[in-house]
Amino acid sequence: MIGSGLVGGEFDLSEYIVGDDCLVVTNDTVAPLYLDKLKSNIEGKTVASIELPDGEAYKTTDTLHTVLDKLVEIGANRDTTVIALGGGVVGDVAGFAAASYMRGVGFVQVPTTLLAQVDSSVGGKTGINHAQGKNLIGAFYQPGVVLIDTDTLRTLPDRELKAGLAEVIKYGAIADAEFFGWLENNIDDLLNGDAAALAFAIERSCAIKAEVVAEDERESGRRAILNYGHTFGHAIENSLGYGEWLHGEAVAAGMVMAARLSGIAASDQDRLLALIDKAGLPVAPPDIPADVLLDAMSRDKKVQNKAVRFVLLKELGNAYVSADIDSGLLQEICGAGS
Amino acid sequence: MIGSGLVGGEFDLSEYIVGDDCLVVTNDTVAPLYLDKLKSNIEGKTVASIELPDGEAYKTTDTLHTVLDKLVEIGANRDTTVIALGGGVVGDVAGFAAASYMRGVGFVQVPTTLLAQVDSSVGGKTGINHAQGKNLIGAFYQPGVVLIDTDTLRTLPDRELKAGLAEVIKYGAIADAEFFGWLENNIDDLLNGDAAALAFAIERSCAIKAEVVAEDERESGRRAILNYGHTFGHAIENSLGYGEWLHGEAVAAGMVMAARLSGIAASDQDRLLALIDKAGLPVAPPDIPADVLLDAMSRDKKVQNKAVRFVLLKELGNAYVSADIDSGLLQEICGAGS
Repeated sequence: MIGSGLVGGEFDLSEYIVGDDCLVVTNDTVAPLYLDKLKSNIEGKTVASIELPDGEAYKTTDTLHTVLDKLVEIGANRDTTVIALGGGVVGDVAGFAAASYMRGVGFVQVPTTLLAQVDSSVGGKTGINHAQGKNLIGAFYQPGVVLIDTDTLRTLPDRELKAGLAEVIKYGAIADAEFFGWLENNIDDLLNGDAAALAFAIERSCAIKAEVVAEDERESGRRAILNYGHTFGHAIENSLGYGEWLHGEAVAAGMVMAARLSGIAASDQDRLLALIDKAGLPVAPPDIPADVLLDAMSRDKKVQNKAVRFVLLKELGNAYVSADIDSGLLQEICGAGS
Repeated sequence: MIGSGLVGGEFDLSEYIVGDDCLVVTNDTVAPLYLDKLKSNIEGKTVASIELPDGEAYKTTDTLHTVLDKLVEIGANRDTTVIALGGGVVGDVAGFAAASYMRGVGFVQVPTTLLAQVDSSVGGKTGINHAQGKNLIGAFYQPGVVLIDTDTLRTLPDRELKAGLAEVIKYGAIADAEFFGWLENNIDDLLNGDAAALAFAIERSCAIKAEVVAEDERESGRRAILNYGHTFGHAIENSLGYGEWLHGEAVAAGMVMAARLSGIAASDQDRLLALIDKAGLPVAPPDIPADVLLDAMSRDKKVQNKAVRFVLLKELGNAYVSADIDSGLLQEICGAGS
């Protein structure tokens, strides 16, 4: 369900809640803005809520257990519904709690960041971080409904809106040249928060992700194309220290780097770079020595126990996965920022 | 896979392990007996192992995290297989770790207690306890294969073998009158550890459980009949303090109580009581005041947010679920031990 004026509006979320009660999981940034509004969408149900501290640093087993303890405290049963109101961290933690409590209760997502709206709320991935790796512990668990209100993006910091647009651009780049063209024509409207443009971009992004995921729910093959720009992006985040650049910013630079590694037509590379640049996102890695980035990538490989596989483009709108890359070119690309 | 001489024998478990490596999760009672033997079934794979402390008291989030940390430590990836070697606690914790690590890795069960062989290794339930309730946190996660070696029952304490037989008798009582008759004729062989008799009883028990579960994987309806004797049983365990009576012992007495509440023919009640008695299991609740048992049942109800539903018998081999019971009779039955 995507639209504007949904949270705090006429939309009746209680239809999607099977039992009598629900627990809204949110954070201390989002709660003051939207918790009371959301409650008005859930009339006729008993509503409890819990506010997590805001931030990726709290995507931990301790936070998970505060949610599970809260479910115990309110006497939640198998018909209880967990509602995630917030960004990706809230969705991932609340979703894993919903998946685990009594081996699975109701789950509804109300993502309030663009990144969560186009990424983490589709595909059923939930989980928490481990000291040794992000999202190392979790479950595949599908929400019964995802309620996306574009109005919630009005309170999103500008930098986070742009970072979310990086993922939107990614969907065009990997799977839909026409959508990519639409983004080129409508990037200003998106940056200005135009509700109709945002709704279309989110809808198209979710549809592309859903199509890719449906082909490959357990992530054995094609789903990997969703990681376009992410091998470079993770290496950037890792080398800078997580949180220095936003995930979307690192992915933005990563997409430009991956396009170059793909060896696609210069005109396509230019279009991608221009769109990312217009979105106010970085088009090159930060000032990090090439070997630091390369080392971060190979450590990533070690965890996977596999060769580094890159998502490459055949052209805009057409991605594939390959481990067969030009290592000289890779070195050169990684040195571009330093 | 059910038989004798499997663990430490010719059986090649490595065929069921997709990747190159596995983690055997066991406990400090089972490891000295079977860990080395099991390793000989897994040639050609990298085998790591972790020993948990033995006992239900350790079915906790802390124990779960020692297993998850071990998976991180060995650099486990999505193709890694977790092998549970032990009883129900090991299976439940290892299974939940397998379900959660990277959102699901390979999982194999090698149950070494009769209870685990006929109960927890079928149906995909995994999980840990919460201070406020048993199995409150977990996942449905099916093992790729369950390897049951009846020889492992030779080292099982007699009292635990008998407690496992309570569940075996339950399967006959709820779903298979013919099997119930077979049990009446073969109870001595089972108590004496006859491998062929045990293999047949385990196979039939698993088949009945699998049939019931297949009809109702998410436990909304028919699966509840597997809880025959458990409403009374849990109340007994709860009132005595967990661990005083073994689960199977409490269920045994609970089955006799539930048969009486069902109002089935006296001859059927007598047959059930006689078989349970021959198996060396209690046929009446311990000396607990009726109101304590009744109160324990209603607290159970509160957690479920529902009326207490009892699994009742129409006759031996035919169970159903009902909340419509004779409360005077229930009171009388609960007072039988005091």
